[in-house]
Amino acid sequence: MCIFCQIVAGEISADIIYEDEKTLAFLDNLPVHPGHILVIPKVHVINLEDVPETDLMAVSLTVKKMGALIKSRLGYEGYNVITNNDPVANQVIPHLHFHLIPRIKNDNLNIWPQTPYQKDELKEILEKLKA
Amino acid sequence: MCIFCQIVAGEISADIIYEDEKTLAFLDNLPVHPGHILVIPKVHVINLEDVPETDLMAVSLTVKKMGALIKSRLGYEGYNVITNNDPVANQVIPHLHFHLIPRIKNDNLNIWPQTPYQKDELKEILEKLKA
Repeated sequence: MCIFCQIVAGEISADIIYEDEKTLAFLDNLPVHPGHILVIPKVHVINLEDVPETDLMAVSLTVKKMGALIKSRLGYEGYNVITNNDPVANQVIPHLHFHLIPRIKNDNLNIWPQTPYQKDELKEILEKLKA
Repeated sequence: MCIFCQIVAGEISADIIYEDEKTLAFLDNLPVHPGHILVIPKVHVINLEDVPETDLMAVSLTVKKMGALIKSRLGYEGYNVITNNDPVANQVIPHLHFHLIPRIKNDNLNIWPQTPYQKDELKEILEKLKA
């Protein structure tokens, strides 16, 4: 059983913030900033491709609720929601989870560098995606 | 009208990958990697706190669909989904949007540093969130 399924089952303790029939929200114990929350579906699915629609809906609503809490209760002015889908994207625990990361002005957490397309590259990508 | 609402209205062109009644998906023209997709609700809402449930559901389903395309059509092994909620969290366009960022092994796009809680800090955060 994966570590998040063990938390759902109550076999490992966690600082649970919110729970409903289909979802669980708890503190990441290695926060980027204090109040960093993880939201998971209770069902064991590895990533977004695997999650049933009803569980995805429930998780999205819990993410929305937890984001509001980060602002109203903890006083942060904003946050990022991040899911790392697959090991190549830094996913460590193989159970779909959404990070809610509170942010602080000038915290130097930079977004990834973005650069314009080369012309042929754009054409090729569009052909594949719109196939 | 914000730039994303102008794209929805057809007043500004974009490389649209997918469209349905409530959502739109198009290429970010400054990709982290080629195939970087943005998914938005058509309704103008600034952030997650503002988005009606039905639009959030629709956006979540479109994010799931686009993530699958990034893997099946473009051959990437994974991706990140990121939303920057509010200016402090690097939100630039004030219209809710989800970045789907394809990833490449050893691309050196590092996740943000995470550090353990100090004991009193954890207690205080839990008291506020569970109030």
